[in-house]
Amino acid sequence: MNVLTISLDSHSSTPLYEQIYSYIKNEIQDGGLPFRERLPSTRKLADYLQVSRTTVNMAYEQLVSEGYIEAIPHRGYFVCDLEGLVRLSPVSSYENRTESTDETVYDYDFSPHGVDLNSFPHNAWRKLSRDLLMEEDKYLFRLGDPQGEPELRRTIAGYLHQARGVNALPERIIVGAGNDFLLLLLCSMFGGGMKIAMESPTYRKAFDLFCNLSNEVQIVEMDEAGMRVDRLEETGAWLAYVMPSHQYPLGTVMPVKRRMQLLHWAAEKEGRYILEDDYDSEFRYKGKPIPALQGYDRNDRVIYIGTFSKSIAPSIRASYMVLPESLMDLYRRRARNISSTVSRVDQMLIAGFLNQGYYERHLNKMRAVYRGRHDVLLEELKSFREICRVSGENAGVHLLLTFTNGMTEEEAIRRAAGLGVRVYGLSGYYVDTLRTSSVSGHSLPLPSGQCECGMACPSGRNGDTVLLGYANLSEQEIRKAAKRLRRAWLR
Amino acid sequence: MNVLTISLDSHSSTPLYEQIYSYIKNEIQDGGLPFRERLPSTRKLADYLQVSRTTVNMAYEQLVSEGYIEAIPHRGYFVCDLEGLVRLSPVSSYENRTESTDETVYDYDFSPHGVDLNSFPHNAWRKLSRDLLMEEDKYLFRLGDPQGEPELRRTIAGYLHQARGVNALPERIIVGAGNDFLLLLLCSMFGGGMKIAMESPTYRKAFDLFCNLSNEVQIVEMDEAGMRVDRLEETGAWLAYVMPSHQYPLGTVMPVKRRMQLLHWAAEKEGRYILEDDYDSEFRYKGKPIPALQGYDRNDRVIYIGTFSKSIAPSIRASYMVLPESLMDLYRRRARNISSTVSRVDQMLIAGFLNQGYYERHLNKMRAVYRGRHDVLLEELKSFREICRVSGENAGVHLLLTFTNGMTEEEAIRRAAGLGVRVYGLSGYYVDTLRTSSVSGHSLPLPSGQCECGMACPSGRNGDTVLLGYANLSEQEIRKAAKRLRRAWLR
Repeated sequence: MNVLTISLDSHSSTPLYEQIYSYIKNEIQDGGLPFRERLPSTRKLADYLQVSRTTVNMAYEQLVSEGYIEAIPHRGYFVCDLEGLVRLSPVSSYENRTESTDETVYDYDFSPHGVDLNSFPHNAWRKLSRDLLMEEDKYLFRLGDPQGEPELRRTIAGYLHQARGVNALPERIIVGAGNDFLLLLLCSMFGGGMKIAMESPTYRKAFDLFCNLSNEVQIVEMDEAGMRVDRLEETGAWLAYVMPSHQYPLGTVMPVKRRMQLLHWAAEKEGRYILEDDYDSEFRYKGKPIPALQGYDRNDRVIYIGTFSKSIAPSIRASYMVLPESLMDLYRRRARNISSTVSRVDQMLIAGFLNQGYYERHLNKMRAVYRGRHDVLLEELKSFREICRVSGENAGVHLLLTFTNGMTEEEAIRRAAGLGVRVYGLSGYYVDTLRTSSVSGHSLPLPSGQCECGMACPSGRNGDTVLLGYANLSEQEIRKAAKRLRRAWLR
Repeated sequence: MNVLTISLDSHSSTPLYEQIYSYIKNEIQDGGLPFRERLPSTRKLADYLQVSRTTVNMAYEQLVSEGYIEAIPHRGYFVCDLEGLVRLSPVSSYENRTESTDETVYDYDFSPHGVDLNSFPHNAWRKLSRDLLMEEDKYLFRLGDPQGEPELRRTIAGYLHQARGVNALPERIIVGAGNDFLLLLLCSMFGGGMKIAMESPTYRKAFDLFCNLSNEVQIVEMDEAGMRVDRLEETGAWLAYVMPSHQYPLGTVMPVKRRMQLLHWAAEKEGRYILEDDYDSEFRYKGKPIPALQGYDRNDRVIYIGTFSKSIAPSIRASYMVLPESLMDLYRRRARNISSTVSRVDQMLIAGFLNQGYYERHLNKMRAVYRGRHDVLLEELKSFREICRVSGENAGVHLLLTFTNGMTEEEAIRRAAGLGVRVYGLSGYYVDTLRTSSVSGHSLPLPSGQCECGMACPSGRNGDTVLLGYANLSEQEIRKAAKRLRRAWLR
């Protein structure tokens, strides 16, 4: 295996791990290491090169994160298919494409759905897992309550009350494997035919999912405070989907007055509900934290959804929905026979993680980490002032740049990609209701990418906009990436 | 704590654990141990009583399984709310009611959805879990492929090919948190409006779920070979939902000829599909194993669903769906952006469980265990010959008794319950299409319990029928329970 011909320069200013990384990367790009080739184990390579195993690990991790190699547990590291990697293809901003292998290689990826995993509390997780499985408790392997383990629901209720001001009784909480599943469950409760009001741009997956399941989605105009409640009435919708803590993707934080208007709208007519998606409220950088909309609700009209995927790790498939009392009967009749989608072991793990104080510590750590990155990025962006303005920066883990010099979104993305930096276009998040929301048989419309709503949009349209997520880049990486963006955009 | 006043008789023929169990059970029933009271730890009680910890564990486990106490990991054992337990309420056969606390106390429960957890391979599971988490692999905590980990999909493909004759390419497999979720995903792909043919009685959850999501369900008559394909044509359905390996709940095994007719029906017209739910094909007691219907399909018309919840443990929330090639494009366009519902750790755990031979060993063990219980139950049922006949006994983990002496289902259930034995009525599994399959707003029909299809049903109707599941009862328990049933029904 020719990896073993690496010669390292221990006097170089380039760290050893980077030398290993570069060598292997070049070998892969040149075809010296073909697709599916197995790399030597970290131990073997470390022995051979007389370096620490950590050094080799870091090199391999970097290669994994850039998609050159993949780690297959119990088997080792293998060279990935580079077919897609080496080709510089046009970038789509549509969500989830990060999963695809058919893409450009980027040195820096400002993904707005990133989560920093370097801070994942491996030791705590491992300990909790070991303790749980030690018990040899048959209980853990029985089918649990479809709503989720009572222990976990009690824990979530306590957390939500303290941290988000949410009034959540454990018996009104439903635990599910991700927000997508909980939205499917909601559709199943109402049986399709929901009349839903959404913003545009919005969380695209929710829009697609609602449309796919025969619901009627109406787009409601936004202003700087979020969804325009005065325009909501005329849509005839009875469910308003909003993200008051940090609208995705615009980053708008809905002020209290608008929240009150929204609650008022819901209370005015029987059967109206607000669906509050509180997907990343844990991270906030400016101003006093605003409690969740649900906490202000006195009329039992808010369906609240939150997740552990953003705050712990994306592969932790656990979200929660707090239903208003008035929907519990519907839930019991129409959706309670859908079995729980989260394993009991995982549920008890998460409950332990919260109850034993790990979650609080982890959140505090992540807040500090993300705030640092947020501050560095804002600092760097000062030099872009002439060509764009920043918005959506007060919370969450991404912000927006709207170009004021006429640069189009497509051009900004292309130029950045040319220097190995990935940024995300806002246009992919605009939705329109021209798509048929129901299909018969198998003839289906293609998902649309561009905004065709023709309405005045608060961001974008009067200047193209890109999203920059900073959760998954170190402060140093952000500085380096910003340097490249300056070269790409300010030349 | 008055638990410590137990006095044990080591010369009694009643085992020590049973004495402990009876004492605590009586204390709880008499109110000596109130709701929420914490029991002494197993170690403490074992020390005090000078018995082994295993003895106390067995007593506690029995109390847990009967719903008197619950185990809360890291906290201990607590007395449950007996409000529901002590009241002898009428029994409903509707699925999932086993979850409810508002029920009769049974000494023996012939639940048809039971899984024996005494045989769960704790050590293997613990070892795999420890090894996985040892790696400190960030990879494990990233959001995975929405279809499931490639490693797991390769493993499932190999297993299905070998064990079930299923032609499953890894790229056509979708891993999801339970069958219910996979059915929701399918509805999302087709966007409601599916025209589905189902049998009656059938798997009730699937029927409810399809109806809830605005699909049109048609009931097709059955005979002793399963769904009558000659009646399928006239329904106008383009998706036939069947369980050829072991129809639930009737236990019918569809003969090869009928399978061929079904495949022929599907091949005849563009856009027709068969949904094969192979939920418990692992267990079969008579005749040669018949490969899955999917394996015979030469026209790319079968959607195949299977699960690890029955074969490993119910709390393992992992099922898989094999899509025909012709539906992959639809999947990618309409459902691939729904994130995976199974955590990466769990997926790699299951992959390891299969790859390292544990699954095969476990299945062989379970086959032997279930076959033993199956044989004992059949032997015991010989003495019931005058009042009922047995059917559906060749596969799976439940069978049916149809009364030939005029006893009604309701009476059989009531009489059995009177002696502490729970059996399940067949009538709850009959479905009818009079229920509106779509609802607007919040006015919903109640789920119906009784068969109103008016068709000739192959089982039941000409004699009421009950289901007896034997997965969760030991051979000795089956013998004891059968004795009680004799007293209940033959008196």
